[in-house]
Amino acid sequence: MEPESKTRIILATLDLLRQAGLSGAGINQIVEASAAPKGSIYHFFPGGKLELATVALEEAERKVGQWFREIFDQHEPIAGKMERLFADAAGNVEASGYTKSCPVAAVALDIDRDSEKLRAVCHKIFMTWQDIIAAGLDEVPEAERREAAELILAALEGALILSRSEATKDPLLRAGKTLGNILARRLQPAS
Amino acid sequence: MEPESKTRIILATLDLLRQAGLSGAGINQIVEASAAPKGSIYHFFPGGKLELATVALEEAERKVGQWFREIFDQHEPIAGKMERLFADAAGNVEASGYTKSCPVAAVALDIDRDSEKLRAVCHKIFMTWQDIIAAGLDEVPEAERREAAELILAALEGALILSRSEATKDPLLRAGKTLGNILARRLQPAS
Repeated sequence: MEPESKTRIILATLDLLRQAGLSGAGINQIVEASAAPKGSIYHFFPGGKLELATVALEEAERKVGQWFREIFDQHEPIAGKMERLFADAAGNVEASGYTKSCPVAAVALDIDRDSEKLRAVCHKIFMTWQDIIAAGLDEVPEAERREAAELILAALEGALILSRSEATKDPLLRAGKTLGNILARRLQPAS
Repeated sequence: MEPESKTRIILATLDLLRQAGLSGAGINQIVEASAAPKGSIYHFFPGGKLELATVALEEAERKVGQWFREIFDQHEPIAGKMERLFADAAGNVEASGYTKSCPVAAVALDIDRDSEKLRAVCHKIFMTWQDIIAAGLDEVPEAERREAAELILAALEGALILSRSEATKDPLLRAGKTLGNILARRLQPAS
């Protein structure tokens, strides 16, 4: 079995997770989406669905982490970073016809007793992303960066939900602008 | 068939939607969770799963709307409203063992071609909730209330995801506090 079929299986799983979370990514759906034989899925991922979901989420961790780094490594005022972050996310969700967004959020909202193991995977990814965001908030006092990063990530995940629900980029674009404004304002010296 | 079995079916559906969204609320799962015969589900809801999901989401709209009204009708500084909103949400998600949160968010992240009808249902509910929040932001300049309400709802939905992923109330409690602080600060006259 060729390594490219392994990659194809991971990417198909990731795509299904972005669309409907864990409950949308059953082995049969992965077989159909990846056009890989069921045997090759168990060959590459003997742990089945949960192992495959873990690997797919870690792939998302890297991709999204890279995107966050590109934004937060810039020397740009915080309002500009917020606008770019939310505009990029809006572009991605629009490109999917408003049917796909963050796979980690979708999985976190599906966790039950059978998939309890994935909770730690989601948590670790969210922590990694918050670290990347926090490291790029050089305008924010150091003691407050971590909490600001958490709020930014929460607002992004929530605005993705609102944009999916109305099939427009507007909630993301507005949330990025509003958040950028109030964060920038928060940084001005008290009157 | 007694009306109480109709209510039982709706509440069981709502509970399943809070847990894993649409893909977790199949007719068989609703039969099992409600202990209602399958025939009675189709008797009350001839439209099947999508009709039942719509009715269950509308029930959530009322319950959550009532909760928002109780918070946003108070004469209290905005930071206090934020703390109460996020602390209440944290208490609810903790009470579910971090397995249940907002049914509308969970459904919005599951929408595909087969469930496209539910997009408008989710959108309408989010708009109603934003109206309730906006009406209670009397400290915020009127022209900015709607966008502030949208950011508050986005941050709440996103922080629910973060809290579920780490099975602690902390992300919600911190997000409520941070958001309350920056919104309150935003309202001070410019220096």
